[in-house]
Amino acid sequence: MKAIEGFGVAKVLDSDNPNFSVGDYVAGFTGWEEYSLITRTESLRKVEKNDISLSFHVGLLGMPGFTAYAGFYEVCAPKKGDAVFVSAASGAVGQLVGQLAKLHGCYVVGSAGSKQKVQLLKDKLGFNEAFNYKEETDLTATLQRYFPNGIDIYFDNVGGAMLDAALLNMKVHGRVAVCGMVSQHSFTDSEGIHNMFAVVRKRIRIEGFLQSDYLHLFPKFVETVSNYYREGKIIYLEDIAEGLEKASSAFVGLFSGKNVGKQVVCVAKE
Amino acid sequence: MKAIEGFGVAKVLDSDNPNFSVGDYVAGFTGWEEYSLITRTESLRKVEKNDISLSFHVGLLGMPGFTAYAGFYEVCAPKKGDAVFVSAASGAVGQLVGQLAKLHGCYVVGSAGSKQKVQLLKDKLGFNEAFNYKEETDLTATLQRYFPNGIDIYFDNVGGAMLDAALLNMKVHGRVAVCGMVSQHSFTDSEGIHNMFAVVRKRIRIEGFLQSDYLHLFPKFVETVSNYYREGKIIYLEDIAEGLEKASSAFVGLFSGKNVGKQVVCVAKE
Repeated sequence: MKAIEGFGVAKVLDSDNPNFSVGDYVAGFTGWEEYSLITRTESLRKVEKNDISLSFHVGLLGMPGFTAYAGFYEVCAPKKGDAVFVSAASGAVGQLVGQLAKLHGCYVVGSAGSKQKVQLLKDKLGFNEAFNYKEETDLTATLQRYFPNGIDIYFDNVGGAMLDAALLNMKVHGRVAVCGMVSQHSFTDSEGIHNMFAVVRKRIRIEGFLQSDYLHLFPKFVETVSNYYREGKIIYLEDIAEGLEKASSAFVGLFSGKNVGKQVVCVAKE
Repeated sequence: MKAIEGFGVAKVLDSDNPNFSVGDYVAGFTGWEEYSLITRTESLRKVEKNDISLSFHVGLLGMPGFTAYAGFYEVCAPKKGDAVFVSAASGAVGQLVGQLAKLHGCYVVGSAGSKQKVQLLKDKLGFNEAFNYKEETDLTATLQRYFPNGIDIYFDNVGGAMLDAALLNMKVHGRVAVCGMVSQHSFTDSEGIHNMFAVVRKRIRIEGFLQSDYLHLFPKFVETVSNYYREGKIIYLEDIAEGLEKASSAFVGLFSGKNVGKQVVCVAKE
């Protein structure tokens, strides 16, 4: 039976591909299993075992981190002083978006789904403000409270009602980078977006993106973000489930926001 | 009582502004009235009375024409061979968008609300295809029929259900220029947009715009489009209501699509 695929970090035990030697560490598509036979080696990249945690290669320095980097710098057109809103802000992508925006000189507000996450955003991740969307009854009014002069950039990880509320709060020529639609994952019972008329009046740009369109920037990303991390300018929250048997519950937990930071499953210790 | 303002063309009967002399023709904000006192003269521009109909300065060479020009060239990022869809395609803006797209080497399909308009799009305005949206029961399937390989550019004049259907039919990296939301003018009973998830998967860019952001291009627009018109490369359909007393019914008719082409009210003959 074929194992479920997923982004992982693994140690090479044997290889007939000259690019990978026994003992190398690789990141890319691996399986939900203890030992994997990987034939699509073009999806793998070698990673260094150094002062940076190996697990970061599926998070801060992997696909989610690169999504944050490409989305923020290439899609959001950020300027110093911009007012930036990030949803799912303590998640694998959002936490880096917020910190990159702060380093860029932006005012940053994040939303998350628990008191604990809101505290982390403000105390650990350096967001200017954060709120628990589950405690809010009128998201349009909430955003107006945090952005009395409007939002320049909305980095959208959730879609749905939050996007609808953000549209009403965007500034003229505001940008919405659409990274994910967690709230719409089921595609059923979707309430729909009702405030698209704001897109014309305020000349809003909404742009969907995938990190895979920006792979030419990956080396620069790894260098930039590794340096920020080593210099202590950014941190990265992980939620590590120990043992392959925890994988399914960890996965399901993503949809109710049980995880705090990037959800990682540790299949084997080095 | 102050007259309702609107875009108009008028002859100067008297002027204390050195930029405008008696006998000049001007276009800009005038009133729904036979004689107007215009104090905001900065909104006026002088127009030439020549081989081009004066009424064209509120249509082809006015705000609607410039909306088509700026939206198509500046927002849609058109390339030769692109598949272009235009809604409200026989309207004041849409008819020029379609013709500019054809001149650019695009494949162009338009939607309109009557058999007569569909015939005009195909027979007079040179669209590759056109359909009557009122005769269609499944707009997603309709667009799939006309764009089996997907849409590169959707020039959206209506919003609503047509936008929702277009999102499902966009190609990867498709562009949606949002010009108007006629279907949402009341802002009530809005069904909402349910297919925003397509924006991520297909990396769609949706951008609202107003022609007023591109005024630096106005002289080039007038020159380009006047030349196209004189060379017989484009035509422009107008629906002229004779007499000021027809203004209100002409205005109301816009919302049920009674007009064919740009609705003009002729207050006075030259």
